[in-house]
Amino acid sequence: MAENGAKRIRLGMVGGGTGAFIGYVHRIAARLDGDYDLVAGALSSRPEVAKESGKNLGLSEDRIYTSYEEMARAEAARPDGIQAVSIVTPNHMHFGPAKAFLEAGIHVICDKPITATIEDARKLLEIQPKNGAKFLLTHNYTGYPLIRQARELVASGALGKLRVVQAEYAQDWLTEAAGDDNKQAAWRTDPARSGAGGAIGDIGTHAYNLLRFVTGLKTEAVSADLTAFVPGRQLDDNVHVMLRFEGGAKGMLWASQVAVGKENGLQLRIYGDKGGLEWSQENPNYMWFTEFGKPRQLLTRGGSISVPPAASMNVRIPSGHPEGYLEAFATLYSQFAAVIRGEGSDFERLLPTMADGVEGMQFITASVKSSQNDSRWTRLADV
Amino acid sequence: MAENGAKRIRLGMVGGGTGAFIGYVHRIAARLDGDYDLVAGALSSRPEVAKESGKNLGLSEDRIYTSYEEMARAEAARPDGIQAVSIVTPNHMHFGPAKAFLEAGIHVICDKPITATIEDARKLLEIQPKNGAKFLLTHNYTGYPLIRQARELVASGALGKLRVVQAEYAQDWLTEAAGDDNKQAAWRTDPARSGAGGAIGDIGTHAYNLLRFVTGLKTEAVSADLTAFVPGRQLDDNVHVMLRFEGGAKGMLWASQVAVGKENGLQLRIYGDKGGLEWSQENPNYMWFTEFGKPRQLLTRGGSISVPPAASMNVRIPSGHPEGYLEAFATLYSQFAAVIRGEGSDFERLLPTMADGVEGMQFITASVKSSQNDSRWTRLADV
Amino acid sequence: MAENGAKRIRLGMVGGGTGAFIGYVHRIAARLDGDYDLVAGALSSRPEVAKESGKNLGLSEDRIYTSYEEMARAEAARPDGIQAVSIVTPNHMHFGPAKAFLEAGIHVICDKPITATIEDARKLLEIQPKNGAKFLLTHNYTGYPLIRQARELVASGALGKLRVVQAEYAQDWLTEAAGDDNKQAAWRTDPARSGAGGAIGDIGTHAYNLLRFVTGLKTEAVSADLTAFVPGRQLDDNVHVMLRFEGGAKGMLWASQVAVGKENGLQLRIYGDKGGLEWSQENPNYMWFTEFGKPRQLLTRGGSISVPPAASMNVRIPSGHPEGYLEAFATLYSQFAAVIRGEGSDFERLLPTMADGVEGMQFITASVKSSQNDSRWTRLADV
Amino acid sequence: MAENGAKRIRLGMVGGGTGAFIGYVHRIAARLDGDYDLVAGALSSRPEVAKESGKNLGLSEDRIYTSYEEMARAEAARPDGIQAVSIVTPNHMHFGPAKAFLEAGIHVICDKPITATIEDARKLLEIQPKNGAKFLLTHNYTGYPLIRQARELVASGALGKLRVVQAEYAQDWLTEAAGDDNKQAAWRTDPARSGAGGAIGDIGTHAYNLLRFVTGLKTEAVSADLTAFVPGRQLDDNVHVMLRFEGGAKGMLWASQVAVGKENGLQLRIYGDKGGLEWSQENPNYMWFTEFGKPRQLLTRGGSISVPPAASMNVRIPSGHPEGYLEAFATLYSQFAAVIRGEGSDFERLLPTMADGVEGMQFITASVKSSQNDSRWTRLADV
Repeated sequence: MAENGAKRIRLGMVGGGTGAFIGYVHRIAARLDGDYDLVAGALSSRPEVAKESGKNLGLSEDRIYTSYEEMARAEAARPDGIQAVSIVTPNHMHFGPAKAFLEAGIHVICDKPITATIEDARKLLEIQPKNGAKFLLTHNYTGYPLIRQARELVASGALGKLRVVQAEYAQDWLTEAAGDDNKQAAWRTDPARSGAGGAIGDIGTHAYNLLRFVTGLKTEAVSADLTAFVPGRQLDDNVHVMLRFEGGAKGMLWASQVAVGKENGLQLRIYGDKGGLEWSQENPNYMWFTEFGKPRQLLTRGGSISVPPAASMNVRIPSGHPEGYLEAFATLYSQFAAVIRGEGSDFERLLPTMADGVEGMQFITASVKSSQNDSRWTRLADV
Repeated sequence: MAENGAKRIRLGMVGGGTGAFIGYVHRIAARLDGDYDLVAGALSSRPEVAKESGKNLGLSEDRIYTSYEEMARAEAARPDGIQAVSIVTPNHMHFGPAKAFLEAGIHVICDKPITATIEDARKLLEIQPKNGAKFLLTHNYTGYPLIRQARELVASGALGKLRVVQAEYAQDWLTEAAGDDNKQAAWRTDPARSGAGGAIGDIGTHAYNLLRFVTGLKTEAVSADLTAFVPGRQLDDNVHVMLRFEGGAKGMLWASQVAVGKENGLQLRIYGDKGGLEWSQENPNYMWFTEFGKPRQLLTRGGSISVPPAASMNVRIPSGHPEGYLEAFATLYSQFAAVIRGEGSDFERLLPTMADGVEGMQFITASVKSSQNDSRWTRLADV
Repeated sequence: MAENGAKRIRLGMVGGGTGAFIGYVHRIAARLDGDYDLVAGALSSRPEVAKESGKNLGLSEDRIYTSYEEMARAEAARPDGIQAVSIVTPNHMHFGPAKAFLEAGIHVICDKPITATIEDARKLLEIQPKNGAKFLLTHNYTGYPLIRQARELVASGALGKLRVVQAEYAQDWLTEAAGDDNKQAAWRTDPARSGAGGAIGDIGTHAYNLLRFVTGLKTEAVSADLTAFVPGRQLDDNVHVMLRFEGGAKGMLWASQVAVGKENGLQLRIYGDKGGLEWSQENPNYMWFTEFGKPRQLLTRGGSISVPPAASMNVRIPSGHPEGYLEAFATLYSQFAAVIRGEGSDFERLLPTMADGVEGMQFITASVKSSQNDSRWTRLADV
Repeated sequence: MAENGAKRIRLGMVGGGTGAFIGYVHRIAARLDGDYDLVAGALSSRPEVAKESGKNLGLSEDRIYTSYEEMARAEAARPDGIQAVSIVTPNHMHFGPAKAFLEAGIHVICDKPITATIEDARKLLEIQPKNGAKFLLTHNYTGYPLIRQARELVASGALGKLRVVQAEYAQDWLTEAAGDDNKQAAWRTDPARSGAGGAIGDIGTHAYNLLRFVTGLKTEAVSADLTAFVPGRQLDDNVHVMLRFEGGAKGMLWASQVAVGKENGLQLRIYGDKGGLEWSQENPNYMWFTEFGKPRQLLTRGGSISVPPAASMNVRIPSGHPEGYLEAFATLYSQFAAVIRGEGSDFERLLPTMADGVEGMQFITASVKSSQNDSRWTRLADV
């Protein structure tokens, strides 16, 4: 049972069989705050893996499925059927399950990017979810407490009118051609499974979503230069983007999977005419905040600041005791649980939606297109 | 069910009612890896709080107790009774429950320090646990992956013969006299509930345990200077200790609750004749490692290093995605679950034991005694 | 006298009267290693300031000039005339003095950017210096020891084939419109005195020169988006540039004078297929160096590394004792002194030249042009 | 000539011949701000080295001496004789020259520690300098701008009543026994030349002086544990000291030359009942300042802060452009020049004096004595 006395939500999972990374992360996120019980799954398209994985996770045999369609049907029919499902398959396998479960009246928690193509993303928007089934896109970095605080600081006017945004997400794990044994690398560098974007879809979209979440700026157009540095690689592994926002602010976004020495260097820096903010995911419990003409301040997660931390920040333990990636991820899960239970109207405006997913696809698509057109400025509205 | 297909362990809790901090932390730790189900509790000594708290946590009414003695008796008698219990009460209330549950054949997970007095700690050592019931002391910082790696590096000889250890744990939350509304501060500054040590028992003992865990050095004697800076405070809020170890190494330990600007500044620095290590809890996914005459290296949790990470490190997510305090805490829980299930012989030598608890009390007692004797060197063996 | 027994070089200065910033810096740089004696000056175009300033600096009256033309003539005619001159006037006043002194056979040390316009820069290239008078452009950041080491690491192949370069120089001092009393701001935001570029000429050109110096990459083309955020400002105060290098490497460059919280945030990050380097001017005695698949190493100025530090690094004091901006600046001066004395053939290839100055102007001019053409890729060769 | 129009002070040097480290540093410090001209020297006790070194530094032959006594006599007799002398010999060779020059009416700039023994230090105090000749002890770290600011912040009450001071100076260069070719190591580990203290005299005394300079606290007593870790070494290479100050504040001081990975890790942390300060020499342009209950602020050298920087801070270049060790050293030289010229009454109270030197010797002597007496608390007043 959840900490607040509410009954746990019955959860299913599509994808996430033995050896999968992100499915494991979703399960921890679902457990951490005690709001979910995993009771069903179509964990792999390979029946034997699905069964073995389900057994290991303690699912009862009749709720281990080998097809998501069957799972959606069967679970919707059970009185104790799942109330929500987590979709943790490769990108091209998001659309089908999302549609099936929403139309079955089951809430959907979907990994990002929302789909492999913008067409699929738009089709998803047109679906009529049964019984008001809701959708959560796990742009998990938006769950970091200081990211929530950054958003509030911007909204409060503490930075003044925004001028410049610098976003980056740099890794090095694809510096060399991936071996055949690297499942994670294999599908992420395969256009059939990832879509038209490589690094831009896998991590650029996280950086983009984060800057949008915190600043609220609307993107007008992008000018992009995408590169595949590793010989033979079909998708970009390094991304340079310049951005123009409505109202005149400007931005740069760098995403790379070949930046030797970077692990998960997601960083956001925002400057307005009154103040500046800087945050890095690799040490996420600290954020620089400067008011023009005053010394830099190092804000800490849940630490001293004039404005009390918002409930939405979900600070579990005192400042100085670090929380991390899994807690941020869990915050999305637990606040979505509140939304499902009808307790979370405040959270609803914070959690990443289908519309965010579509906009992420616009960003990917416009960037790819711009890059193909010699970096011509390309409007998001035009793709 | 746990990720590996094992059945979840049925868990009870003593203390940890509504508003308690450390009980909440223990519950997250128990849930995170999916190895436990909380099914019973004596969550408060006040019956109405116990009931309300138990209800909020979804315990069935017949397993909400108002006395731990009753709980030990009743749960031991049930076929579906708890297999393990978490004791999260103030220090002076550790001994009683620990004894009761161990003698009832129920595994005990006990917050630190083990007891309020060294006499109690020694009495605990003499208890005959029924059915081989096991005991875990939650010196949670030992669960940090890089702390495990530090221990392995030291043991491997990478630092050579150890010479100097610098340990510190600095906070500032007790800089001013605690208000009446601060429950956490109230019992921690009260000798009746905390024992003879203030900062030294609350956080000094963490720093001490950590240096012992990583270095394996045996402490010969301490010379201490304890101070209560805040007027009217009965227990030390700042601790200076010099240490002498068997074999000639020397150390310093600083613990403070009045160091303005420090949140949970637990830091460990170790130097041998071949290398040095430095780690800080506030950014725990990084550790400095220097081989003499070579550049400093920044090791990352689960990141690149010549030696592969040990299984005991329990790295859940890739390097660069930060894990924190709760994950380290959860590692103690999940590895103790493995021990309970008989799968964890490798973990048993790593998890903090009753003997560690007794030694922690020796450290506290010897330090207090030294401080009372004008910092005279005081042997741990003599207290 | 210099530390090595050589006679000091007789130095003059154009610009740098009382209250000027960069002239003062040049004088410290000239003194620090003992290679120069300042003996003449045309320190201001206002005669009374020139006299007062010259007197304060101890110049004898007959060597205080009010026009650089006169100074060049008179000094060239004296048997004890200056051997070198430092030009520290605003950008549009570099060309005239540089020409005059070179043609008078006097070595020139010139602040950057070389001139206010690319036309002037090219005319400078065509000058025939008398008696082989030499020219030094004070791109002072190239004098930092770790920048020299970075250059050697790249040249040695330690990073492999370069792929990505991220350069930035962010400040915040022009966040608001400059008051009339701010001389520094006044000429830097005035096209008549600065040339067509604002931030791009003042600091972008430093970042650009630095990346060129360290990587040796040749720039093919730039795509730029320049903005003047402060109302009424005529020159850019924020600069976004994407770069394409010969051989396929890509880069981004950000320069800003409105990034609240940044003081002199000059930063260079370089990634190849074997390794990565990261350096920041605000803490210049440290540099990250990562070989792919190994832990990050923190190199220190003059500290441990497999390759011994090159003489060109000019490390004056042991690692851990910080050197800074003035020492880097002084290194240019003292190595140029060696060149003047005929001892410095090794240094000659390292010190920034007139050709570097012309290329810097190409960068500025191409970026301004690209920005005016909706960020169209613009070849440096075409401006 | 100095920047302010004053005539340069004629300077001599004792010690500092070719290959000497600290003499070279003193010369840069003397040159940097333009306040001195080196015109005479007894640079080595070996005549041929003295001559060669003097020649390299451009001294005229008749002012190259082979004995300091002769130099004091001769220079005092010359109309153009030196006005000040820098003493940069090993510790045991400070007393003789200091006495000789002071009694000859020549100002003395002396490296630290003041002498090799406390007896010598006290004898120095009794000397009657001719013509009011003044004495500067180059505790150079007191010249760092942020150290000056720290002192002002403490004095202003911004930290409230001081409680805890943590000082440390850790290096690793003596981790192994020094080879015969290491001149620096040789005299520093030799009691005949260094005095009774090793690390404590060489670097512990710097840390101690710095904490005294900034806090103004008076030391009551020390409890020390000194160790020589390297086999065969006669002097301590690691120092642990606990301190008690008048008024009740407490401190710890750690100095080490065997802390692998540390270069010149001089660090000062100060906590009062209202605020805290933290500063580290290896990145000296930044200082943490926290007011209790507010976010940490990162002050920068010359950067934004409510109180304008004091003139005594001697900030030469804008914040964000790092200054370092040599600039701090030069500040002592240039402010002593002002004192010599009679312009520097404000500086006189800031510059380290003979009394500071004596107290430093008391600290060394009391610590050595305490360590020999099983760390018994030893009063500085009693040695």
